Amino acid sequence: MIESKNTVTIKDVARELGIHHVTVSRALRNTGSVKKETRDQIKKKANELGYKPNRLAQNFRNKRSNVLAVVVPDLRPYFFSKFVSDFMEIAQEAGYSVMIFQSSEKASVEKEIIDSLIGYRVAGVIASVTKDTVQESHFDVLKSEGIPYVFFDRAPEKTEASQVLVNNFQGAYDAVNAMIKSGKKEIAYISTHYQHKIFRDRLEGYKEALKDNGLTYREELVVKGGFFMKDGFVQAERLMALEKKPDGILAVRDEIGIGVIKYLKKTDVSVPEDVAVIGFDNDPMGVACEPELTTVEQSIPLMVESSFDLLLGQIKNAKLNFEKKVIEPKIIFRGSI
Amino acid sequence: MIESKNTVTIKDVARELGIHHVTVSRALRNTGSVKKETRDQIKKKANELGYKPNRLAQNFRNKRSNVLAVVVPDLRPYFFSKFVSDFMEIAQEAGYSVMIFQSSEKASVEKEIIDSLIGYRVAGVIASVTKDTVQESHFDVLKSEGIPYVFFDRAPEKTEASQVLVNNFQGAYDAVNAMIKSGKKEIAYISTHYQHKIFRDRLEGYKEALKDNGLTYREELVVKGGFFMKDGFVQAERLMALEKKPDGILAVRDEIGIGVIKYLKKTDVSVPEDVAVIGFDNDPMGVACEPELTTVEQSIPLMVESSFDLLLGQIKNAKLNFEKKVIEPKIIFRGSI
Repeated sequence: MIESKNTVTIKDVARELGIHHVTVSRALRNTGSVKKETRDQIKKKANELGYKPNRLAQNFRNKRSNVLAVVVPDLRPYFFSKFVSDFMEIAQEAGYSVMIFQSSEKASVEKEIIDSLIGYRVAGVIASVTKDTVQESHFDVLKSEGIPYVFFDRAPEKTEASQVLVNNFQGAYDAVNAMIKSGKKEIAYISTHYQHKIFRDRLEGYKEALKDNGLTYREELVVKGGFFMKDGFVQAERLMALEKKPDGILAVRDEIGIGVIKYLKKTDVSVPEDVAVIGFDNDPMGVACEPELTTVEQSIPLMVESSFDLLLGQIKNAKLNFEKKVIEPKIIFRGSI
Repeated sequence: MIESKNTVTIKDVARELGIHHVTVSRALRNTGSVKKETRDQIKKKANELGYKPNRLAQNFRNKRSNVLAVVVPDLRPYFFSKFVSDFMEIAQEAGYSVMIFQSSEKASVEKEIIDSLIGYRVAGVIASVTKDTVQESHFDVLKSEGIPYVFFDRAPEKTEASQVLVNNFQGAYDAVNAMIKSGKKEIAYISTHYQHKIFRDRLEGYKEALKDNGLTYREELVVKGGFFMKDGFVQAERLMALEKKPDGILAVRDEIGIGVIKYLKKTDVSVPEDVAVIGFDNDPMGVACEPELTTVEQSIPLMVESSFDLLLGQIKNAKLNFEKKVIEPKIIFRGSI
């Protein structure tokens, strides 16, 4: 990083205001306790004078630790617990420690967590946001401290930050296409009520595959609700009560797909002969059921590796990058189609 | 806490040695950088003079945060990811933040994590130790900082610290007993190679139940190895190749039990008619298979609540307690017995 031509320093701001430079520094770095009033006054003055922090020097002064933080919405689903566990192992091999946080799908908790990371002087952050996170503004504190971060799987919709995403549109498209190729014509989709883009993308992929195969989109075949096995059971019951029943069901998660299979078998509907089923996630649970569940896999090892590389690149170059990596999903064929 | 009669202060130690009292304080609290030689000299002198830290005052001076740390060996198994996730939710409701760490079953990583917690000024720690952790010595730094900690599920064998454990002996005993009551006589046990006491206790429970029912313990019916579904598959194959085959199989984890059921069904052995199967954990995966897996449940909500209460009690009273709570397991009967 080249020395900035800007010569306004923290001491200049301090002199202008008659406030001690340590207080000014604290206010501008959002660390330590400075009264809101004073902080606002300092920020305003710094702005007026055209003060720009030298982030690299700041990082150096702060002696950032070798700790990485991972923030996920929920640790229970296989996808997140496996991602976090694997991420931790490759980070450890590279000499980093990892602390993990769960936002419990609450945007307010996510904000608290991000704020707290400044105090722990983490070297970098990997995050998958809550189902409700649209804005990225609560990550700005990281940016202003020069702490790099990478989103994985779920990014805020309006972000330019580095991210590792799955092509969810393609995953759903391929799954529906595979069912159509195996002779199915009335394909239903069990989605979730979560609003996040990744779920909307899956729905779009479902619709597009129908269209490209000359099939009509029927609204009654798209149902929403739930996240677990019992929800799949309930939604399958609803779909199979339709006058024009589905002969294929795509589930937004493997757990839901397993619930579907359980309902179908209980009511003596053959899988896949009468109804084919495909899920998402490659959850090991899909191998426990019978027939084993065909699934859209989002390669966790690839996501872990890509996220880590993107983050490490930024840490080593002391530069915030904006890079987007898209992982292509893959269908794992088992017995349910 | 009553003021100690001991009047030796850090300043006394500093004066005796001609070293600045800040250095002495650092050395005695194991914080900051003090040369090993100096640190040893200070500790020796402090000991000689009979210096005892006033932990409560220390806590107060350090302004401990409202952050709790949870340390687990592996986030992937259902038991741990569910425990951590639930613990986080009740801690959040009570106004605490939670940071999570994974030791990856490595004692050296566990030690690093515990050491790092001092720097984060956590208010308390909940830990389940690695399969190899026997000694508690690496937790001593917490004790010397007055940071309370509670072990759950897996505690070091030699510890007096607060702990919430499951009666693993009873769980295995009840499971074997249930199989015998249903008419089974040749009961096998698939264990893990992990050495931790909780696994030895399960083995003892298995043996005791056989004894109390007048059945002979046959060494060939106890096999060890693995942790996952595929291991259950392999071990079942091994057991069913015996001349005197088992008619009941207890698995140390549900995932292994599911692998057993998959093998039995593949080889046209009826479950539970020919062979009954019981697992441990109440992993939702056990409901995915057919027949559904009977399991020994260790109540996670109860463990979460008890651990949190024990920890909070210590934090609020600013006193390290030594309390042991034992959770009685419960068999959840499904289709596999």
